[in-house]
Amino acid sequence: MSIYQATASAPVNIAVIKYWGKRDTKLILPTNSSLSVTLDQDHLRSTTTSRADASFERDQLWLNGKEDEIKPGGRLATCIAEMKRLRKETVEDKNPEEPKISDYKVHIASYNNFPTAAGLASSASGFAALVASLAHLYSLPASPSVLSAIARQGSGSACRSLFGGFVAWDMGTQPNGSDSLARQVAPQSHWPEMHALICVVSDAKKGTSSTSGMQRTVETSALLQHRIAHVVPERMESISNAILQKDFDTFARITMKDSNQFHAVALDTEPPIFYMNDVSRAIIALVVEYNRLSVEKGQGYKAAYTYDAGPNAVIYALEENVKEVVQLVVSYFPQKPEEFKDVLGLFGERGSLDLNAQAKVPVGFNEAVAQRFEIGAVKGLIHTRVGDGPRRLSDEEGLLAAHGLPKTLA
Amino acid sequence: MSIYQATASAPVNIAVIKYWGKRDTKLILPTNSSLSVTLDQDHLRSTTTSRADASFERDQLWLNGKEDEIKPGGRLATCIAEMKRLRKETVEDKNPEEPKISDYKVHIASYNNFPTAAGLASSASGFAALVASLAHLYSLPASPSVLSAIARQGSGSACRSLFGGFVAWDMGTQPNGSDSLARQVAPQSHWPEMHALICVVSDAKKGTSSTSGMQRTVETSALLQHRIAHVVPERMESISNAILQKDFDTFARITMKDSNQFHAVALDTEPPIFYMNDVSRAIIALVVEYNRLSVEKGQGYKAAYTYDAGPNAVIYALEENVKEVVQLVVSYFPQKPEEFKDVLGLFGERGSLDLNAQAKVPVGFNEAVAQRFEIGAVKGLIHTRVGDGPRRLSDEEGLLAAHGLPKTLA
Repeated sequence: MSIYQATASAPVNIAVIKYWGKRDTKLILPTNSSLSVTLDQDHLRSTTTSRADASFERDQLWLNGKEDEIKPGGRLATCIAEMKRLRKETVEDKNPEEPKISDYKVHIASYNNFPTAAGLASSASGFAALVASLAHLYSLPASPSVLSAIARQGSGSACRSLFGGFVAWDMGTQPNGSDSLARQVAPQSHWPEMHALICVVSDAKKGTSSTSGMQRTVETSALLQHRIAHVVPERMESISNAILQKDFDTFARITMKDSNQFHAVALDTEPPIFYMNDVSRAIIALVVEYNRLSVEKGQGYKAAYTYDAGPNAVIYALEENVKEVVQLVVSYFPQKPEEFKDVLGLFGERGSLDLNAQAKVPVGFNEAVAQRFEIGAVKGLIHTRVGDGPRRLSDEEGLLAAHGLPKTLA
Repeated sequence: MSIYQATASAPVNIAVIKYWGKRDTKLILPTNSSLSVTLDQDHLRSTTTSRADASFERDQLWLNGKEDEIKPGGRLATCIAEMKRLRKETVEDKNPEEPKISDYKVHIASYNNFPTAAGLASSASGFAALVASLAHLYSLPASPSVLSAIARQGSGSACRSLFGGFVAWDMGTQPNGSDSLARQVAPQSHWPEMHALICVVSDAKKGTSSTSGMQRTVETSALLQHRIAHVVPERMESISNAILQKDFDTFARITMKDSNQFHAVALDTEPPIFYMNDVSRAIIALVVEYNRLSVEKGQGYKAAYTYDAGPNAVIYALEENVKEVVQLVVSYFPQKPEEFKDVLGLFGERGSLDLNAQAKVPVGFNEAVAQRFEIGAVKGLIHTRVGDGPRRLSDEEGLLAAHGLPKTLA
């Protein structure tokens, strides 16, 4: 008897043109297009194993070893149902010799290799890995674009994690969402020098969830409609061109403006939504001063901050400048010794090191733009880079044991 | 020989529809109308004495006992020149018997009764007191409206301090600024129950000056134009009606929305401008929760925060609710003992008291909306209320000694 199982991993993506607002909350159709950089799965990823078996009594899912309820009509149920429908319509109905596994219940185990405490949204990589693993399980002929429309119904930004490199999510115009799809603007190989430094920021207060926050913005912000109609379309085009031309200066400028504008419309919400805190503000001040100095030297922008629905900063920089950015950040935000994993060999040999010994600000940098913080204000730094799209993994990497339950339970 | 001297005081005003952006930086013509509440001069005021004398060799001004340079072509020089011109054209030219004191140089001494460290802008009350004292010195027949156009050229928001009560500054349309004037929407006596609690917030970082900040917003914010054209006109009308109807609920809602939107366009500026910090955010969270509870009880909004170009909160509340607001604020922001001056007898006898003993949150208040801060995060609380316009003071209250120099030098 055959075992129907597949394992896939999918990457995190961090938007540079922000998604904020739905025009259809059930289908998850956005009020504006968005664009992101896919980060390297070698560092941050969700891995998912899906198995279909006639013996399974119900669809079940374990996230990090803990069972997660699949609520009827909920987002997980919708994605699983859509994938089963694709299996039936595009495989089984067309080729009667294919096993009718779309009728089987599935067991799904998913694992994120980054801690929840890192404050990185795992829903994008998680739903992308779910859809990717089911696509392999079902041997679907579907393109990443088609799969993106399904992942989108799990979590909007998940659609962008179906591609590597630089990825647009076109908002589309169809009421059924058929044209609200992700699309690759440029592959990872086009601009592999694009690196990212994630600054994990502690926050005393839990912020507003993005799902409820964005709808409050849609309902109450007078400025959001202007952003949607007049600002984003032009920025989508400009930043796509900047990426195609590998124009970091323009890429950086638009990235920072759009992060600011997203937080501006959040603040224009009733009651207002704040995601950035004093540490976030200080990191912005450092990047602004770093760029000012660089522009003064005729070198253009060298770093671009962006903030999602939380206080963490993601700083995009070209590979050649990342070391300088890390040195700058640790000058203001000392780290616990041995905390930093130098996975890309920024400071010589790969491995853990005491970053504080590397603290250094560029000559001419106005050190008064921010105060120096205590250890823990930025509680971790993760260095990564642009990466590829979902990967199929071998059975040895599967997360389900022979009996169809997770190998590791929490 | 006559002594030509006059002394006047003028109030602080705190906008509820914010002024942010100039269409003419020399004449100080704004990009949108604004509206403010004039605060009581019994508590916060600028006092100015002006004297004209044939023996004076040059125009001189002392601020808090320290000479301030009157730069040629600068704002001070413009205001003084305009007042001399009014004297000549509307008094001396029309009545040849009037002394020709517009030719004399002036000595001006000005004093703010609130410390600079309080972070309250003194330019509005300061320029209003300057213009008011010169108007008395010159026995001008000019209305407060005409004087507002001159104060406006000193500091935009100063024009609103020429009136008591609730004051609009109509942006006007004339290129020469002749219709960009302040206008009283309602006098102090219309709604004397309107009180204000100023929360003086410490900030590690000095923010961007409002003069340079607002022009950067005009130049770079994509959202500001939408605010100007589509949001402010409607809000000006709605909040004026709310004031005329003494509808605190609507007044509060618009006040908070407009404060948020001002900070949103500041954030949408390149590079972004932040005036609020984590303490400001926490005060917002307290007011939001306080109102949520009140609305739940069917009592509508009971408090309205607003923030100018700094981290200080001003909380508007009706007299009957101020005590509760103070008790709430000190529950999260303990004060130094004996720091609070209970000038309006909120807690019984007027005088200094230890507010911390009064800390109390309303029943049903979700205490988790903010963390509790250390003493000093909010370094002072000032309780005041709506007040009247500039006052002429007696000669005994004059700030210049017989020889024409300040009685008190710093």
